[in-house]
Amino acid sequence: MSKKLLLLSNSTNIGEEYLSYPRQEIKTFLGSSVKKIVFLPFAAVTSTYDQYTEKVEQVFREIGYAVDSLHLAEKPDELIHQAEAIVVGGGNTFHLLHCLHKHKLVEIIRDKVNHGTPYIGWSAGSNVACPTIKTSNDMPIIEPISFQALNLVPFQINPHYTDAVLPNHNGETREQRLKEFLVLNPDVYVVGLQEGTMLRIEDSSIRLIGNKKMYLFKFGEARKEYDYSDDLNFLL
Amino acid sequence: MSKKLLLLSNSTNIGEEYLSYPRQEIKTFLGSSVKKIVFLPFAAVTSTYDQYTEKVEQVFREIGYAVDSLHLAEKPDELIHQAEAIVVGGGNTFHLLHCLHKHKLVEIIRDKVNHGTPYIGWSAGSNVACPTIKTSNDMPIIEPISFQALNLVPFQINPHYTDAVLPNHNGETREQRLKEFLVLNPDVYVVGLQEGTMLRIEDSSIRLIGNKKMYLFKFGEARKEYDYSDDLNFLL
Repeated sequence: MSKKLLLLSNSTNIGEEYLSYPRQEIKTFLGSSVKKIVFLPFAAVTSTYDQYTEKVEQVFREIGYAVDSLHLAEKPDELIHQAEAIVVGGGNTFHLLHCLHKHKLVEIIRDKVNHGTPYIGWSAGSNVACPTIKTSNDMPIIEPISFQALNLVPFQINPHYTDAVLPNHNGETREQRLKEFLVLNPDVYVVGLQEGTMLRIEDSSIRLIGNKKMYLFKFGEARKEYDYSDDLNFLL
Repeated sequence: MSKKLLLLSNSTNIGEEYLSYPRQEIKTFLGSSVKKIVFLPFAAVTSTYDQYTEKVEQVFREIGYAVDSLHLAEKPDELIHQAEAIVVGGGNTFHLLHCLHKHKLVEIIRDKVNHGTPYIGWSAGSNVACPTIKTSNDMPIIEPISFQALNLVPFQINPHYTDAVLPNHNGETREQRLKEFLVLNPDVYVVGLQEGTMLRIEDSSIRLIGNKKMYLFKFGEARKEYDYSDDLNFLL
């Protein structure tokens, strides 16, 4: 069974409507056989799950998909088992992973996606598709049972990747933070996924979508740049 | 016995020499009865503990203090027990706390500082003085045994606090991230400590040092601003 993932750096580019830039790509990815998606709003912290779901539902309805939100399910594991597609929204990665572990959803989702159910994630939702959340940008506002995540791809993603730095500020750059990760995890590839870009994975094929470069980090190697025309299948 | 802490936002301001801005304040804080400090270099990841210690030792030697680094001690707990002052450097907060837990140093340091041994921390070293590391800005490159930290003060610090945002970037602002923390921890004060500022705590007295404002965050309340002349003792 073919594995299908669409992993977005971010939901929304500055100045655009919510989930605007990836809308067409989401429709192409899900196709016409999917009628309804299961949405996981657990990365939301400052808004309610209901508010978050409503915002997402509006977008998905516009492109032709109904939405079931997992937070309303009496039996979340059954809803996952029956899902035609799984969509995991961004927010706080620690909170999201905490909920996945707490509700014992990690294995169930992994199994389901490994058996061909399409998975879409953005930001935190892309991070939890990786082996761990150790390349998250988020604040560790809650302690998840484990940093181990869905492990749907064998590499790490750093969403919202940017080379920009704050003027007159001495905090670490994103690249410095990722280099720290690589020192402790020298065998792992990290993809710096810039805003407005995404990775589309189908079985053993992976493509960058979007007009910005993707950066690849590996311990002891210089940072490499790739664009949408490059072969990235070595990452799988 | 009086508790004494000097908690710095950062080691170094942009364009200045290493540990330049807090140098005089460190000397005033430690005074002349302290001859030697014990340094903890465990937040270092991309440099070695030796390199980090050398850099710090140079500064402390200039202001009149010898340095023992904990990573060279055969019996780290004994070195802590005998310490005249404890100094915890910045770097990666997760790595620092991981090492503190792994070497079973959390209780020993807490006890020592609670009994009057002066504690200096900057950045990650200030964060671990708090109840938890849940207000860290760092990347979670390693999973500590627990997010519980030294708990030397009853509030949280967000080091390197800034209102600045990257242009054309849609990641969360620092204030948004802290608001997420407050939703889950509504009883906890968070101090946004701007670069170039520090908190000096002596027993039941706490003062802001530096010319920039300190920001205070609490769930359900508007952000408050304080400067060096304000009474902050309610934080303790």
